[in-house]
Amino acid sequence: MTDSTHYDLIILGSGSGNSLVTSEMESRRTAVVDRGVGSEGAFGGTCLNVGCIPTKMFVYAAEVASTVRDAARFGVDATLDGVRWRDIRDRVFGRIDPISEGGRDYRRDADHTDLYLGHGRFVGDREVEVVITRPGGRHEVGTRHRITADQVVVATGARPRVPQVVLDAGVPFHTSDSVMRIDELPASMVVVGGGVVAAEFAHVFSSLGVRVSVVTRSSRMLRGVDEEISQAFTDLARQAWHLHTDARPTAVRAGGEGVELDLADGATVTGELLLVATGRTPNSDDLGLERTAVRTHDDGRVAVDEHGRTDAAGVWALGDVSSTYQLKHVANHEARVVAHNLVHPQDLRTVDHRYVPAAVFTHPQVATVGLSEAGAREAGYDVTVKVQRYGDIAYGWAMEDTTGLFKLVGDRRTGRLLGAHAMGPHASSLIQPVIQALSLAGPEGGPTAEQLARGQYWIHPALSEVLENALLGLDVQPFHDATAEYDPAGEHEGGTPLDVA
Amino acid sequence: MTDSTHYDLIILGSGSGNSLVTSEMESRRTAVVDRGVGSEGAFGGTCLNVGCIPTKMFVYAAEVASTVRDAARFGVDATLDGVRWRDIRDRVFGRIDPISEGGRDYRRDADHTDLYLGHGRFVGDREVEVVITRPGGRHEVGTRHRITADQVVVATGARPRVPQVVLDAGVPFHTSDSVMRIDELPASMVVVGGGVVAAEFAHVFSSLGVRVSVVTRSSRMLRGVDEEISQAFTDLARQAWHLHTDARPTAVRAGGEGVELDLADGATVTGELLLVATGRTPNSDDLGLERTAVRTHDDGRVAVDEHGRTDAAGVWALGDVSSTYQLKHVANHEARVVAHNLVHPQDLRTVDHRYVPAAVFTHPQVATVGLSEAGAREAGYDVTVKVQRYGDIAYGWAMEDTTGLFKLVGDRRTGRLLGAHAMGPHASSLIQPVIQALSLAGPEGGPTAEQLARGQYWIHPALSEVLENALLGLDVQPFHDATAEYDPAGEHEGGTPLDVA
Repeated sequence: MTDSTHYDLIILGSGSGNSLVTSEMESRRTAVVDRGVGSEGAFGGTCLNVGCIPTKMFVYAAEVASTVRDAARFGVDATLDGVRWRDIRDRVFGRIDPISEGGRDYRRDADHTDLYLGHGRFVGDREVEVVITRPGGRHEVGTRHRITADQVVVATGARPRVPQVVLDAGVPFHTSDSVMRIDELPASMVVVGGGVVAAEFAHVFSSLGVRVSVVTRSSRMLRGVDEEISQAFTDLARQAWHLHTDARPTAVRAGGEGVELDLADGATVTGELLLVATGRTPNSDDLGLERTAVRTHDDGRVAVDEHGRTDAAGVWALGDVSSTYQLKHVANHEARVVAHNLVHPQDLRTVDHRYVPAAVFTHPQVATVGLSEAGAREAGYDVTVKVQRYGDIAYGWAMEDTTGLFKLVGDRRTGRLLGAHAMGPHASSLIQPVIQALSLAGPEGGPTAEQLARGQYWIHPALSEVLENALLGLDVQPFHDATAEYDPAGEHEGGTPLDVA
Repeated sequence: MTDSTHYDLIILGSGSGNSLVTSEMESRRTAVVDRGVGSEGAFGGTCLNVGCIPTKMFVYAAEVASTVRDAARFGVDATLDGVRWRDIRDRVFGRIDPISEGGRDYRRDADHTDLYLGHGRFVGDREVEVVITRPGGRHEVGTRHRITADQVVVATGARPRVPQVVLDAGVPFHTSDSVMRIDELPASMVVVGGGVVAAEFAHVFSSLGVRVSVVTRSSRMLRGVDEEISQAFTDLARQAWHLHTDARPTAVRAGGEGVELDLADGATVTGELLLVATGRTPNSDDLGLERTAVRTHDDGRVAVDEHGRTDAAGVWALGDVSSTYQLKHVANHEARVVAHNLVHPQDLRTVDHRYVPAAVFTHPQVATVGLSEAGAREAGYDVTVKVQRYGDIAYGWAMEDTTGLFKLVGDRRTGRLLGAHAMGPHASSLIQPVIQALSLAGPEGGPTAEQLARGQYWIHPALSEVLENALLGLDVQPFHDATAEYDPAGEHEGGTPLDVA
């Protein structure tokens, strides 16, 4: 144990926490403590190493494979000769790992900043003891360091949660931390979980040729999303994968093709590889928080106020360890707010969680922002909804889309949007104009659905017309012509057979 | 010749003109006069039959073929076994032709509406003589009809312009009117022209396996777009096709692979098929306008005021025959304005041509709205620009994109956008938030680039982040940190090596 070292700031976590070292902070002495993520213990947090970035690289390769398989429908005859899993994997991590390592080395070598590659635990409100667990920094593995600071930011993220029935079984299993680094594609895989992570990996591996079974306790996949979209996604999932809904594994064991699960309803599911994707737990349970005034919620999240402050003076938290949203764009926003607040105590900024969008990078994609239909009804709005099929707009025709939906939830009284929920190609980008309209609304209210539809041009025949036509279909305008249906040639009124029936 | 029949309204043209028969108009007696478009003389105008709709269906098939060819880059081995041109063609027109015919029959059989399938020529300001040229209506081919109306709308569109040197040669050639209906893909094709139509067909046919040569008088393709984007597109075109810029055909003849062109610089270009895509001429020259007070511009466009009125009382015009923009979304807008104005003479609406976007559905796509960099400088703005590479955002990584660019032109003084110009995947949809910001700005001005970037969430890691990062890169904010570069993990500040160099 060395003597205690004092800093201006201690940051626990190198994901969004790493971005706190802004130009405003550069002259202050900062300690970054990071114990790494994933099977490699990588620097840089979940998103870069085991989350958004690598998953989307696999997702895109999966998209390519799907397009090849589906090409004949468009008059293009193609054969999928094979998928080079190792090449895909090595392309992804060959790009990511050097960035992670470069980020670590930069942080280690920067002036004013000390890097501790290990496990930090509070011993007091602004006092942390670090055990070095990984090489690559300035400190030897196994050494202990006591550090203190004027301010501490907890940004330790979250980790995959593994159900007890799996842990008890003692069988090999993967999580999102490890499954992207496997050496060979298995012939079959059982995915336990029905949320975003389960859905994306089921998509990736099944598109790459793995026979995928999905086991979820819920009656629908993506149950956090508006029910209609969630149900539509579940219907497609049932066609693409062996989907077991309302299913609880009662026993897990080695057997069958590799791993075998008994479900409560008597069914048995087997696969070569078991992937657990049943949610994530905030990394707050091994931080020594019990020795601080920092409070946690029942679900393990660190409790923070609207400025990012915990209950302990000078201790802040942000990102997956504390946020209601486990999303990188939210963590980034919270990091910007906290970065400001750390150096402007007299001018605290507030986190904005009003219109947080989210997307699932499956095939098709899912995107959501604002109130679901049920949520809007519960909140007492005079709700109107429109579900626009991708297949009824021109570019949807071109894509021969048969499943895509863009749903808007509106307030009939004001004519304004309350939420948008889409399942279809590029939903994650197509939803942006709704996010913009909701978020940039002044106190007098944002544009109405009609103003959004008619106050701007929508390029014909771009895919964005799916949103234009959803807007036009909302029954919110006093003089709305309910007979006006879209037709792909843009002959939008009059109800002629040019309209798509 | 029958006696003259009087109507409330005569509409010349069945494209955007056909949408004038709104619910407000339904009780009025209307004549629709249409002489058809394309090699089939189809009802419904350019967009539906020979324009936006079918081209995008071919474009998407071409995209699929390109994805198959390019799959190995993503670790997916695929073979393009062949392209079934007739199947593609028949799928497209098997869908479109019945819609065109259904639209024609509906118009023919509707109450209060008479359909004349023929060529209408003015004999006075609101008096038209029609010669029936096509079957399918209520009138025999060859019969003549004199019709009058209180109001007349000229919406006769435009047609491909064919250079004299081609006409003189007497060789077979195609235009966009006919090339989509050919029976077999040629081995090679010469495309004359360098604009949108030339670019889209060069993309389609070359992706489907045709060896394409492009001959354009201009030094760049898509020269109407911001120079930097136009140049980048031209550089790609040079790799994809045999591109002859600054090239003028001096002679055209049968020979070589089918057709042979001599260029002014001495070169000879040959191909099995000749496609002429050298611009479009408004269909105003054979309408008898000389017998009316309707005035035309030197380029043949019918002159209209901001309400859509020509110089002849009670005669209106809209769409490609009169507009400065030959774009379906503009024609639709003009039709909505004129439809209102026809029935509300005391409350005239005005066309809005402030922020007209356009897209080219090539590979990659091109999209544009607002001022180009050169245009903004010419207009005297304190111009700032940012060119964001798709390849430097996370989803661009996933797509292994190496060519995409998203350029923003901003006003340094106000911090607001002036224009956006993009070349890359889904540019036609990704540009929509810029269109929205520009178009919905109130008199006090719209959101600044910083408000757009930071006042809303951008889903990570969606492709829309290319716009977010372009916004952040604009040097318009007084406190802008010029060292802050994007990195795909969202560690946006601090200049660590997590940033993409």
